Amino acid sequence: MKNFIKLEDLTNFNETLSQAIDLKKNITKYSALGKGKTLGMLFFNPSLRTRLSTQKAANSLGVHSMIMNFSNEAWALEFENGTRMTGIRSEHIKEAAGVVSQYFDMVAIRAFASLTNKEKDEAEIVLNSFSKYATIPIINMESATAHPLQALADAITLTEHRTPHRPKIVLTWAPHPKALPHAVGNSFTKMMKNIDAEFIIANPEGYALNPEITKGVKIYTNQDKAIEGADFVYAKSWCSYEQYGQILRTDDKWMITPKKMKLTNNAKFMHCLPVRRNVVVADSVLDNPNSLVIKQSENRIYAAQAVLKEILENG
Amino acid sequence: MKNFIKLEDLTNFNETLSQAIDLKKNITKYSALGKGKTLGMLFFNPSLRTRLSTQKAANSLGVHSMIMNFSNEAWALEFENGTRMTGIRSEHIKEAAGVVSQYFDMVAIRAFASLTNKEKDEAEIVLNSFSKYATIPIINMESATAHPLQALADAITLTEHRTPHRPKIVLTWAPHPKALPHAVGNSFTKMMKNIDAEFIIANPEGYALNPEITKGVKIYTNQDKAIEGADFVYAKSWCSYEQYGQILRTDDKWMITPKKMKLTNNAKFMHCLPVRRNVVVADSVLDNPNSLVIKQSENRIYAAQAVLKEILENG
Amino acid sequence: MKNFIKLEDLTNFNETLSQAIDLKKNITKYSALGKGKTLGMLFFNPSLRTRLSTQKAANSLGVHSMIMNFSNEAWALEFENGTRMTGIRSEHIKEAAGVVSQYFDMVAIRAFASLTNKEKDEAEIVLNSFSKYATIPIINMESATAHPLQALADAITLTEHRTPHRPKIVLTWAPHPKALPHAVGNSFTKMMKNIDAEFIIANPEGYALNPEITKGVKIYTNQDKAIEGADFVYAKSWCSYEQYGQILRTDDKWMITPKKMKLTNNAKFMHCLPVRRNVVVADSVLDNPNSLVIKQSENRIYAAQAVLKEILENG
Repeated sequence: MKNFIKLEDLTNFNETLSQAIDLKKNITKYSALGKGKTLGMLFFNPSLRTRLSTQKAANSLGVHSMIMNFSNEAWALEFENGTRMTGIRSEHIKEAAGVVSQYFDMVAIRAFASLTNKEKDEAEIVLNSFSKYATIPIINMESATAHPLQALADAITLTEHRTPHRPKIVLTWAPHPKALPHAVGNSFTKMMKNIDAEFIIANPEGYALNPEITKGVKIYTNQDKAIEGADFVYAKSWCSYEQYGQILRTDDKWMITPKKMKLTNNAKFMHCLPVRRNVVVADSVLDNPNSLVIKQSENRIYAAQAVLKEILENG
Repeated sequence: MKNFIKLEDLTNFNETLSQAIDLKKNITKYSALGKGKTLGMLFFNPSLRTRLSTQKAANSLGVHSMIMNFSNEAWALEFENGTRMTGIRSEHIKEAAGVVSQYFDMVAIRAFASLTNKEKDEAEIVLNSFSKYATIPIINMESATAHPLQALADAITLTEHRTPHRPKIVLTWAPHPKALPHAVGNSFTKMMKNIDAEFIIANPEGYALNPEITKGVKIYTNQDKAIEGADFVYAKSWCSYEQYGQILRTDDKWMITPKKMKLTNNAKFMHCLPVRRNVVVADSVLDNPNSLVIKQSENRIYAAQAVLKEILENG
Repeated sequence: MKNFIKLEDLTNFNETLSQAIDLKKNITKYSALGKGKTLGMLFFNPSLRTRLSTQKAANSLGVHSMIMNFSNEAWALEFENGTRMTGIRSEHIKEAAGVVSQYFDMVAIRAFASLTNKEKDEAEIVLNSFSKYATIPIINMESATAHPLQALADAITLTEHRTPHRPKIVLTWAPHPKALPHAVGNSFTKMMKNIDAEFIIANPEGYALNPEITKGVKIYTNQDKAIEGADFVYAKSWCSYEQYGQILRTDDKWMITPKKMKLTNNAKFMHCLPVRRNVVVADSVLDNPNSLVIKQSENRIYAAQAVLKEILENG
């Protein structure tokens, strides 16, 4: 693996998953592997878990990380080719990517969806431009359409809480006051292709994810029916994909409540965080021992570490 | 000691003070103690001394520090329980504290007083919420009502400049164009209970600190009389506590001038910095060799190091 | 050398240049030199190359670097003496410089020109105030009138691409939508005194650099004539020095195009970056193998490393 831009970049998903679970037992096992190596972490958007877990993962591998908040610490970047750069953007991605390739051995990038222009978002302008012009491996710390480090962490969490039987796992849309990207939903769906489970997506009419990504997955528009007997309920909000970027409903009928959880098989509750309490999910569901959200955040460390390790070894 | 939220958290003030003074002689003596450990430093407010001295202290102990400016790098936090999170706050402190506990071994937090709501400030919402929901030790890098790292550094400075006789030490209010918190005044007052000295607080009418904290301390409303014969004059501005958050006077009668210093016993001048020149104190007092302000800032390193060391050893 | 505020601070330019070129062959050769030392990096302006290359250079020498974005992380600084600090500036440079001297072994500072007040800019208020009040070495990461780390990196790049004959090197003004400082032009000009070459500056009427700096240098106001037969074309925009801070023309006649490059002796193209494509220089010139801009940015690492090494060794 050279880049980790999407989940499919992993040479062997199950091997990486095993590696991550192994690393959790001994986080400093490979602390000499990254000696003298540097990881650049470039943020175009806020970050808590991704920032801290990736930094911790790098540090555990002996990698020196350098963080840059591009929006306020460096120069505004131009991503279009051929333009006369007379506006506010004072540096072109060609130079920026070329330059950071001189300073880092690997570069991790966070650049969210605009949610205003579907084509541009799907073109993954920021990540793909870095990938095109940089000469070093690129790691996705959540892009417009994917969040593979989260999906890998979720796979660790699912594996750790394996049921004796083939589990029923439901990814359900949830309400939210802001239009949110599809990245987590997309990557979780792709990741599930690697897990032996009955996988169902539940979303209201108008909130279907990109059909190319959900192809072959059972989709319910009745949340109660979807989560009936579920072993895992993964809640996540996203805006409409079809009416791109729109919020189509503001009611709380899809909020995950204790009453809804009673329909499940004593399901574990999952969410990638940050989560809006009593909007996406009721307090008592989050505060219940069945909630795995903090464990998911912990596993972000080992997901990042497994990915960085693989890149270091192949580099 | 698990947490260092307030000065009283120290198991034995004098032992920590001695430890700090020892560390100053050999800052790298315990450079292996913190190997593999991480300190999270979370800032909700600006910081120069606290940020740099704590980072340096951590590094000297072999601890890897990760800094996050919460206000612009992460998500706005909700601290109230039971609310429907439909506003701008997208992450609840329960999750934030739980999550950072996965990434750090200790977490240091700076969160100033609002100065608009006395009850909320005294409840120390930010620090106490982290303390309640985190599973790792918490270190106070200045909260709404306390700045114990500053007070410990001040104790080091006072000890280093010990007079042959029992000293007279005066904490005096000083003018300032902005309403400032009581944290430094409170913690210095509490710290003085451990120092053998005649301790006096001077403040104008209406500017008394929280009477629960100053109980038993002589308070003068005549600055000249208070500082007469003083060996140490510690100037600090704060807003009114009784008329919470208010500035009651804007004259410069309480500014520390050379003339005022002539009333003292050739007193050393102290201030926690940052200080407004020719508002809080005249240029010539600050530029006089009797000013200890830079030494105080240096001692912030050893105060932080002693505290981190104690937490690491008990952890 | 104590401070590296301007190029002339180097004890021996050629020795530092050789050292930098040597370090490039083995970046970790002196990785023990800076053990236990800290470098403070204080930014009053944005930075990409300078920030990352200096951090990497420090790390390669075993130096721990601490970064502070002064504008939003610390307190607004007052640089005037004798003022009553009643405004928004809450800390005086005297204290700030004194304090950082306690925490760092060396401090690197970036503080751009205002371009509104020539006298103040030429007084280099920020850098010289730090230099005056700090007790540790100061490193210039681009000040109002100089960018010596860039000039040293440029000298490395010129040396690496040495021609068999004595080269003709042209520094040419270029168009730009914003008023830009003279720092890079000034330092490149000064640096060229150390290089055996025919050195020419080209700029339109009204855009002459500070005549004290360009004394003895041939200046052309005809760009075509200047670059005729050139081996190196270094493009850089700056605002008018005489009509200080003004933009006198907005046409693109001085943009470096393939047609212009045809006048040269197959010249290498240089620029310090960030560069506005199709404003300062045409895409096809930047994308041509003769462009050295990425190599220049790489050499920033070794320029910074040579400077830090020299300061560490003399410290």
